[in-house]
Amino acid sequence: MRVSVALPIASRLLNHGPVTLVTSAHAGARNVMAAAWAMPLDFDPPKVAVVIDAGTHTRGLVEASGEFALNIPCRALAAQVLRAGSASGRDLDKFAHAGLDGFPAERIGAPLVAGCVAWLECRVLPRPDNQRRHDLFLAEVVAAQADARVFRDGRWSFAEDELRTLHYFGGSVFAVTGATLDLSADFPD
Amino acid sequence: MRVSVALPIASRLLNHGPVTLVTSAHAGARNVMAAAWAMPLDFDPPKVAVVIDAGTHTRGLVEASGEFALNIPCRALAAQVLRAGSASGRDLDKFAHAGLDGFPAERIGAPLVAGCVAWLECRVLPRPDNQRRHDLFLAEVVAAQADARVFRDGRWSFAEDELRTLHYFGGSVFAVTGATLDLSADFPD
Repeated sequence: MRVSVALPIASRLLNHGPVTLVTSAHAGARNVMAAAWAMPLDFDPPKVAVVIDAGTHTRGLVEASGEFALNIPCRALAAQVLRAGSASGRDLDKFAHAGLDGFPAERIGAPLVAGCVAWLECRVLPRPDNQRRHDLFLAEVVAAQADARVFRDGRWSFAEDELRTLHYFGGSVFAVTGATLDLSADFPD
Repeated sequence: MRVSVALPIASRLLNHGPVTLVTSAHAGARNVMAAAWAMPLDFDPPKVAVVIDAGTHTRGLVEASGEFALNIPCRALAAQVLRAGSASGRDLDKFAHAGLDGFPAERIGAPLVAGCVAWLECRVLPRPDNQRRHDLFLAEVVAAQADARVFRDGRWSFAEDELRTLHYFGGSVFAVTGATLDLSADFPD
């Protein structure tokens, strides 16, 4: 079940460094690409940073629309994530190619990816020097949702293995998010 | 055993989104702080992006020296990572406070943290607008090393649980890097 995540804690969805799927849309076209290089940039209002290569179809859609979503896939979608990284959306419908379904976002025009476990809807902050020199996009998070089975009380809590998030090692290899190490007894908040 | 990591694959050390320890030094002072918001920015020459809050002692040392290291701690250092996040190096020797030891880097003046499993030595790229508006530092990686027990043939390969890297959930809670999911048979490089 998808639930809204309060914006001041939206950074926690991305804090642990999972792989993301970047979705974008403009003028009737839509696309999805895999991106490991994404991180939180600020808490409130929440901001993110993500690298979107100049050669990608996504880049054009993001620059034209000023929007994108970071979707956080889980283990059940690992093959689809690799397929989303293996062709250009210029040449084919990448959702169909990867075996992914989109559904409407709440605040932006880009679709969200079904079966993911968290979604951050983002509006690009104009930083043309970063975009041109480093393919680096900074954006404000304007809506966030998560799957209540794995994000509860403002924190990730993975029980089912298929819903664990992914961390990219390179090539066709990921790690899944492993055991929780809770030191709260020694380090109270 | 520490081994050099070739610079064109240094991004793989940070690809999977682990927590980092940022070390810095200037004019006889040194410091270490925990940072979850770090990611690769480019392959070759390798670059990284990291958020270093304006209020931190580290920020002054990094701005004055133009250098820092990203040290990647493992599960055995989880308590030390939290201690490194629980006080300011302005007021005390953070290495001693956290229970961490430093050793000399190869190319920069900042020390590296003993017991970590990878180390990226970085020189700041002057991007004053990013630093001022977003506390965001972009840097080039000028040397990289890893612990050969867990980074072999250019890839992470965790066997011992105590050497697994950490992913920050927030508060005093981490995930450890979990099982490897290798889809190379279906998706050859």
